[in-house]
Amino acid sequence: MNTDRHLIEKTISSETIYEGKIIKVKLDEVLLPDGKKAKREIVTHPGAVAVLALTDDNKMVAVRQFRKPLERTIVELPAGKLEPGEEPLTCAKRELQEETGYQASHFVHLSSFYTSPGFADELLHLYLATGLKPGPARPDEDENVEVLELSLEEAHELHAQGEIGDAKTVLALFAWENRMWKARG
Amino acid sequence: MNTDRHLIEKTISSETIYEGKIIKVKLDEVLLPDGKKAKREIVTHPGAVAVLALTDDNKMVAVRQFRKPLERTIVELPAGKLEPGEEPLTCAKRELQEETGYQASHFVHLSSFYTSPGFADELLHLYLATGLKPGPARPDEDENVEVLELSLEEAHELHAQGEIGDAKTVLALFAWENRMWKARG
Repeated sequence: MNTDRHLIEKTISSETIYEGKIIKVKLDEVLLPDGKKAKREIVTHPGAVAVLALTDDNKMVAVRQFRKPLERTIVELPAGKLEPGEEPLTCAKRELQEETGYQASHFVHLSSFYTSPGFADELLHLYLATGLKPGPARPDEDENVEVLELSLEEAHELHAQGEIGDAKTVLALFAWENRMWKARG
Repeated sequence: MNTDRHLIEKTISSETIYEGKIIKVKLDEVLLPDGKKAKREIVTHPGAVAVLALTDDNKMVAVRQFRKPLERTIVELPAGKLEPGEEPLTCAKRELQEETGYQASHFVHLSSFYTSPGFADELLHLYLATGLKPGPARPDEDENVEVLELSLEEAHELHAQGEIGDAKTVLALFAWENRMWKARG
């Protein structure tokens, strides 16, 4: 947009710091709108999906999982990274089934958002899944998860206790609560 | 917790890949619960705050800002990184004033969440600020922002258009909407 011109940072140089299995790290030098220079540390990520899967009795399907960056387990929405070229909806169906065993008859896109735009380009696509049918889970080889089913009240309680505490899951809790307000009219 | 023992990944080795100004990157080798090994790419970050600042006429104070990882501007909550040793609430007050000029008479903690726990330890503290008084903004040297005031409807419209599209801001929109439902009872 033309109106953004006074905000734009132009790339002067870009140095690749690390090319990992999941993330890449680069260090860009930029020209600021006022002519000064600055450095920008950037993590690139393939993108991901997450699923707010609600059972017929209005419980959220969640997974408890160890997160190495936090050195602890947290309770989250089923989620996973996009495979190269994979459609987000395909990925959402795959991850829900792999991690929880559930298949859903109905998917609705709720929101897509950048998880941390200050330093990373990860875009996460959030879906609502309903019409759930249970089945066998088949997690990835290096993935160990425990499946839970939580009412909205139980989920809020876990958030208050810090057991639920990641952006996509907290965002989904608020979205779910809105949905319930709307249903009540 | 004892019940987590079957999910825990033990660190075998940890290699520092990059120590930047804001982020650090390390590559850990872990022992999985089943005895197999895996690699974990980890970004460490000082943590951050964001502020849902609502004016007396129930508008959200937002900032449009260029985000180098996305190569575009987006509209977000006022937010910023924690300085070493800084209390999140102190940081929230500082960032709100620096980026928008506003000072608030009342702050409430809404939620704290990890932005992307699969690869990063960034913890973001979200506050609600009310009782706003305008004043002069004084952004950081390398920070160029444009201040907006948006109704909930305008904010949802910007989200639908992709202008609002980061986790903390979308999360705050849903939290704000819940607050309005609750006020209506």
